Amino acid sequence: MSRAKVKFVDGLRFVGEAASGHSVVMDGDPEVGGNDTAIRPSELLLVGLGGCTGMDVISILRKKRQPVTGLELSIKGEKADTHPKRYTDVEVEFTVTGKGVDEEAVKKAVELSMQRYCSVKATLEGTTKVGWSYKVVEE
Amino acid sequence: MSRAKVKFVDGLRFVGEAASGHSVVMDGDPEVGGNDTAIRPSELLLVGLGGCTGMDVISILRKKRQPVTGLELSIKGEKADTHPKRYTDVEVEFTVTGKGVDEEAVKKAVELSMQRYCSVKATLEGTTKVGWSYKVVEE
Repeated sequence: MSRAKVKFVDGLRFVGEAASGHSVVMDGDPEVGGNDTAIRPSELLLVGLGGCTGMDVISILRKKRQPVTGLELSIKGEKADTHPKRYTDVEVEFTVTGKGVDEEAVKKAVELSMQRYCSVKATLEGTTKVGWSYKVVEE
Repeated sequence: MSRAKVKFVDGLRFVGEAASGHSVVMDGDPEVGGNDTAIRPSELLLVGLGGCTGMDVISILRKKRQPVTGLELSIKGEKADTHPKRYTDVEVEFTVTGKGVDEEAVKKAVELSMQRYCSVKATLEGTTKVGWSYKVVEE
């Protein structure tokens, strides 16, 4: 069982506290009455997806003793035009940096995360098509 | 199109930056090699769900001129035992505080968010059963 508490602060600002003990502030867009002091709730889905699969990929590439020096994920999410504006398509692009990183190892690490380990991807994919690509940049 | 960038920092720590310009730090559990300096990626789904529906409910109750002084959401998520350990059931409990808040208005606001407006709930519900309850506390 995972738990969180989310508490109203002011305007459309809320603070969420998770079971790990860490908190995140959220705020709404000025268009809907927020003050843009913090991230939007729906943006947390994209950021959480990136963190989840990023941790998997870094862990797997370390186990494979790959000389990774950087990992950056670019995530693009398309939403439906009509309410409730759910995410319909999400694309994750992984950029792995290092000197002599094996491209095949990166491919496998990304596939293992996306197809087997990443709980956020698995939770989103009921309604959202999640695609991915990767590139390796020689440092 | 919504965008985010998630960048590896060190250990299992990542920083995610969303299109709004705001950033969130994430870290892994020490059990899997993280240092517990920040929230877990999968916790962001529960926190994001709470923020999304919380903003809806506050906005709707304001439009209905309800004298709300507080709103707190308690969110419980069950995950599958096996990888990828997706969320299977999530329960959201809303506690609305105020003096003379109409319980019927609260019920309708919560239902409107959950059934029509909340994009995070709509994105999660493909794989996850999302339930809710509410109570009104006289201040």
